Amino acid sequence: MSRKLRLGMVGGGKDAFIGAIHRLAAFMDGQIELVCGVFSIDPGVSVESGLEYYLPKERIYENYQQMFEEEAKLPEGERMDFVSIVTPNHVHFEPAKLALENGFHVVIEKPLAFSLEEAVELDKIVKSTGNVLALTHTYTGYPMVKEAKHYVESGKLGSIRKIYVEYPQGWLATPLEREGNKQASWRTDPEQSGQGGAVGDIGTHAANLAEYVSGLEITKICADVNIKVKDRLLDDDCAALLKFGNGASGVLMASQIAAGEENDLKLRVYGEKGGLEWKHTDPNTLLFKPLDGPVQIVRAGTGYLSEIATKNTRTPAGHPEGYIEAFANIYMEFVRAVRDYQNGELKSGKEYDFPDVADGVRGMAFVKNMIESSKSETKWKPFEI
Amino acid sequence: MSRKLRLGMVGGGKDAFIGAIHRLAAFMDGQIELVCGVFSIDPGVSVESGLEYYLPKERIYENYQQMFEEEAKLPEGERMDFVSIVTPNHVHFEPAKLALENGFHVVIEKPLAFSLEEAVELDKIVKSTGNVLALTHTYTGYPMVKEAKHYVESGKLGSIRKIYVEYPQGWLATPLEREGNKQASWRTDPEQSGQGGAVGDIGTHAANLAEYVSGLEITKICADVNIKVKDRLLDDDCAALLKFGNGASGVLMASQIAAGEENDLKLRVYGEKGGLEWKHTDPNTLLFKPLDGPVQIVRAGTGYLSEIATKNTRTPAGHPEGYIEAFANIYMEFVRAVRDYQNGELKSGKEYDFPDVADGVRGMAFVKNMIESSKSETKWKPFEI
Amino acid sequence: MSRKLRLGMVGGGKDAFIGAIHRLAAFMDGQIELVCGVFSIDPGVSVESGLEYYLPKERIYENYQQMFEEEAKLPEGERMDFVSIVTPNHVHFEPAKLALENGFHVVIEKPLAFSLEEAVELDKIVKSTGNVLALTHTYTGYPMVKEAKHYVESGKLGSIRKIYVEYPQGWLATPLEREGNKQASWRTDPEQSGQGGAVGDIGTHAANLAEYVSGLEITKICADVNIKVKDRLLDDDCAALLKFGNGASGVLMASQIAAGEENDLKLRVYGEKGGLEWKHTDPNTLLFKPLDGPVQIVRAGTGYLSEIATKNTRTPAGHPEGYIEAFANIYMEFVRAVRDYQNGELKSGKEYDFPDVADGVRGMAFVKNMIESSKSETKWKPFEI
Amino acid sequence: MSRKLRLGMVGGGKDAFIGAIHRLAAFMDGQIELVCGVFSIDPGVSVESGLEYYLPKERIYENYQQMFEEEAKLPEGERMDFVSIVTPNHVHFEPAKLALENGFHVVIEKPLAFSLEEAVELDKIVKSTGNVLALTHTYTGYPMVKEAKHYVESGKLGSIRKIYVEYPQGWLATPLEREGNKQASWRTDPEQSGQGGAVGDIGTHAANLAEYVSGLEITKICADVNIKVKDRLLDDDCAALLKFGNGASGVLMASQIAAGEENDLKLRVYGEKGGLEWKHTDPNTLLFKPLDGPVQIVRAGTGYLSEIATKNTRTPAGHPEGYIEAFANIYMEFVRAVRDYQNGELKSGKEYDFPDVADGVRGMAFVKNMIESSKSETKWKPFEI
Repeated sequence: MSRKLRLGMVGGGKDAFIGAIHRLAAFMDGQIELVCGVFSIDPGVSVESGLEYYLPKERIYENYQQMFEEEAKLPEGERMDFVSIVTPNHVHFEPAKLALENGFHVVIEKPLAFSLEEAVELDKIVKSTGNVLALTHTYTGYPMVKEAKHYVESGKLGSIRKIYVEYPQGWLATPLEREGNKQASWRTDPEQSGQGGAVGDIGTHAANLAEYVSGLEITKICADVNIKVKDRLLDDDCAALLKFGNGASGVLMASQIAAGEENDLKLRVYGEKGGLEWKHTDPNTLLFKPLDGPVQIVRAGTGYLSEIATKNTRTPAGHPEGYIEAFANIYMEFVRAVRDYQNGELKSGKEYDFPDVADGVRGMAFVKNMIESSKSETKWKPFEI
Repeated sequence: MSRKLRLGMVGGGKDAFIGAIHRLAAFMDGQIELVCGVFSIDPGVSVESGLEYYLPKERIYENYQQMFEEEAKLPEGERMDFVSIVTPNHVHFEPAKLALENGFHVVIEKPLAFSLEEAVELDKIVKSTGNVLALTHTYTGYPMVKEAKHYVESGKLGSIRKIYVEYPQGWLATPLEREGNKQASWRTDPEQSGQGGAVGDIGTHAANLAEYVSGLEITKICADVNIKVKDRLLDDDCAALLKFGNGASGVLMASQIAAGEENDLKLRVYGEKGGLEWKHTDPNTLLFKPLDGPVQIVRAGTGYLSEIATKNTRTPAGHPEGYIEAFANIYMEFVRAVRDYQNGELKSGKEYDFPDVADGVRGMAFVKNMIESSKSETKWKPFEI
Repeated sequence: MSRKLRLGMVGGGKDAFIGAIHRLAAFMDGQIELVCGVFSIDPGVSVESGLEYYLPKERIYENYQQMFEEEAKLPEGERMDFVSIVTPNHVHFEPAKLALENGFHVVIEKPLAFSLEEAVELDKIVKSTGNVLALTHTYTGYPMVKEAKHYVESGKLGSIRKIYVEYPQGWLATPLEREGNKQASWRTDPEQSGQGGAVGDIGTHAANLAEYVSGLEITKICADVNIKVKDRLLDDDCAALLKFGNGASGVLMASQIAAGEENDLKLRVYGEKGGLEWKHTDPNTLLFKPLDGPVQIVRAGTGYLSEIATKNTRTPAGHPEGYIEAFANIYMEFVRAVRDYQNGELKSGKEYDFPDVADGVRGMAFVKNMIESSKSETKWKPFEI
Repeated sequence: MSRKLRLGMVGGGKDAFIGAIHRLAAFMDGQIELVCGVFSIDPGVSVESGLEYYLPKERIYENYQQMFEEEAKLPEGERMDFVSIVTPNHVHFEPAKLALENGFHVVIEKPLAFSLEEAVELDKIVKSTGNVLALTHTYTGYPMVKEAKHYVESGKLGSIRKIYVEYPQGWLATPLEREGNKQASWRTDPEQSGQGGAVGDIGTHAANLAEYVSGLEITKICADVNIKVKDRLLDDDCAALLKFGNGASGVLMASQIAAGEENDLKLRVYGEKGGLEWKHTDPNTLLFKPLDGPVQIVRAGTGYLSEIATKNTRTPAGHPEGYIEAFANIYMEFVRAVRDYQNGELKSGKEYDFPDVADGVRGMAFVKNMIESSKSETKWKPFEI
């Protein structure tokens, strides 16, 4: 019998940023219902949050261990299907591992884990359990990013020669972490964030976007990773020269001290026959730049798009969709995979268009390679996992 | 006890455009659940749709009369709280009237009714029943439109002198209604749409936006309403010179034959001390143009916004929100009013920031005044209700 | 023998705005040299200005009558070929008439004259003398405006249905004319400007641009002409509904009290098969909006443009040209006509792509029709000359 | 006695790109007249060009040696004051040297010379002769670039932390040099261009712009210089990580194979208190991004600009100036220096706001350091002259 998928959450109390986004995205399409959760390490906050989300008290748990154990005991018609893990980075691996081992599917906020080692271990667990894991690299959820990938795949650019990807933010231009800002505090704390600051928080998005659209893998890195705000413990700025598998060159820039910038991820890809530009400030537009004609403003919701872009669009042209819808696209594709699993029809990974554990492993490797390259006096560092 | 509000739908079968938007908007914030509906005049489509939305068969009704009757019999803990009416214009008044008379609150897709007479009648019923009715003039749901209104109210522009509002679309540049396009068919059919084509479908949005932001009422109209596509039965293009209550002048343009345009509602307001510009192609931005300094790019999600804009934003700066979120803002404010009603604390209309029956009456009057002005040889027609 | 054309100026003293622009435009291409002038009614300012422009004292005249008389006596190898008249509107007709009657060609700043009557008279004089007269409706000098005209002519838009043209400025939002601003003073003075304020100063540009690009003539007007700043003597704001010769509708807006706007002339033309957009804030770009594909960003200096656009461009793509170059394009085409005249090969008017006396007459008629329509209670006023 | 300055040209025949720009820029302001030249190594082309520019035959010379010799013999009231050298890079040093040694001032198209050695030598000659030399790094001639420099100098950004400068072009994405394109041919020929291709042609502009606005000098480079088009002899793409004197980090990108791009130089500078953005596609705009308020759109021609920006603007706000005017600004400042020289009042270099021989030396050093860094396996190369 057809029913909504049942979601449990780890993290996402009522004042958390990314947890709220996960719920908005999960609810929007009417395919997912929240049935349980542990929303905070503070039990009071957790219960209060769960009640606000209209959960019955008995399904607001004290910790995730208890949640997985109790939910696993419930009959199939009641128990949660999957868990969304939206805690700081140091609390990704353990709940994900435990969820998978208890037979639950997992959505996990990026980065996948605290370290590359954890990521590699999680990869093994996903493979051995056979469950579904999705990583919310949100930006690849945008329909015009998918259209960009389609342009590359269908040969409209010819062989790729150059990739620029940049991600300037300005919100950490001052030492917010010493002014009580919660988001800033854990993101600049190596105990909670791991090895990377900006390089992990946003650099991984930039790298993921470049690889997703181009279909190429970064093979060499020459990085400059900096701490610009005095006494900060983790990097807040980075840039790198890149080489890709086919010989293409690239430049990646990610900074959280670009004063006055908001969240301006932008990708440009140039091939032998033309270029592409997508930017997050205008996410429903893709610029296609052919060698010998006018630049074309390719727009979401129009009749001339690829199937993959159309499938990830809810509104007609001129009715802007945004960040939450891009997020929801990842959830919807994850739902499709979980339903296939439940029907015994789960296909191999690349059939599904959401970032998965392999992307998560590459992300953690990106952080490690960037940090190591930056410390090295040798120019090019091979991208190693 | 706290619970989600329960929604029934009239219209919104699985292939309908605006019904889908209503569900996305209603579900997103986790405050509303769909409990029943009649989704199509074709019973097969209605049932199929309802099942797709995970409703039990017994709450997919044959018609709205039956729905209101049966739902009214259910205990308070089960029955629907409100209905969303998302049918073509000629099926707005009857279900709304019946719903209100049965004690249900109503969300209704604009325009409010088929004719001004129906609209005026509905206004009386809302007042006599004391129930809540919201009209989805979506565009006033955008946070930066609310910020614009706040700028005007707080005197940043001084006395308003000039208002330009425009709404070009191009999708009806060809006779789509004769090519089987369902959206085009009912919109160009006077039996289903009423007196106005473009003037009703989008002109009302433009007029509503101008009045909402400026806080002024249109008092005189000089209109030019046209049918540009041969053999079309309703107008597909209009423009008007306007006068507002305080003596300000205005220009309104709305067209559905502006070939190549998507859905580009745009408002500019000029006062003695500065100007404002908001456009739907970049809805998270408001331009403020002071007389003697640089234009300012006022952005959604930033720390310097008014309370009302902030309250209608879900994401931090640089994480674009769009059409569905604007729509959801109307639903959320409607939810607040219904909860107040249920707690016996419903305040007078202007306490709630959503378009209501009074806006709906003005919209229908706008259509009538535009059509009559266009036919008249006298220049200025007083705006009459 | 090949030589530069010799220019005399009436007006354009060292502090004047538009006179300086005329010189920049005339000099740029190396085809014109300034040989004489009377630059101000103040003889001291005139001499001082002329010396600054490196003229010998004997060719800085006391008044234009003297200048024409004395220059006419000089041998062909020395005397001026043409005069540029850059004085306020009330001093256009007399010097132009006298110059033509003395055998000199004329460049005249728009509007052509102080009144429609003067304009019609000048038209006759041009015809009877056979000399060349160019009117500096600058905006049609832009290469991408010419490309737009070419798109219409070559049928890319199909039959034109709708034209929007707007020209918001904000510089007269306060009573500058009472604060010693020279530009504001004469422009708001009916004794110097004539019947129209904004309608003449910028409304004529908007009307000219719409007619030039569309190839259509305005046939009916329904205007709203306003004085928004208290105690001002001439209109500072206007708008009109328009009808064009082929039945197309239009909207024209021109205001000098649009606080915060600079000089933002913008034209949109919609036909059965597509639309066009050009705006002065980004003059090297033309947007072409086909019905069924992506909008195209057509750019000056590229290899895919029409001959007429290319001919009016000095730099390769991506090297922005601006207002002075557009102005210079009018001068260059005028030079071509004068050289043809001097070689006895002057062709009929429409062979030359610069605004001429006929455009000037239409401009003056536009002002008169706008003013009269605004005062009338009848909606549509036929456009009469 | 006041008179125009007299210009002789080396290069700039009638089909040359940059020579035509130099003339447009030099003539525009009415301060310079062309009096002589040698316009091509082909004597026929040279004479034909000179006649087209209205020169008497006797001042169209056979070679620059002859020109300097003959002009030097003319009386002060006749002979040229300065020479503009607009030949390919390998013919910069010799004519510049000879001109200076003959007492003429020099304008020279960038890059200054064929090699760093030549540049250093020229620097010595300028110093020993005491003549004026200007280098046309055009982009620093834009008024809003000067405003940007002013913002940095006046402390609005606080201490600079990060600089991004990029210069994508697409015109060399195909092997145009093998298809008879003259511009492409010499630019990709090491015999004519020198050591650098894209790095010299446009990378030097990017580096110069970053240093000019920030007031900082590049101290370390980590470069990736590439040949992307098969069989090309010089680089057509480069990028670099940078360190500046105050510890700021930077990224520089310059490519001529960015298919579909025109000439899109763009600079972003971030300090502790805010950021700046200027881009050549919209050169009359400077974005100022303060930490805690709306981004400001700072515009050329407005009343709130610095003196230096205003001085370099010819038109009021909203009347776009472009590439030719930026070029002319360099000429005008050069004219000021030459007149000071002629009056015996020449000040020390930094009194004049045009790129000079010191900038030219840094440009040639930039090319050399980039090439050497790219070949090295060590990450950071000190910027050495």
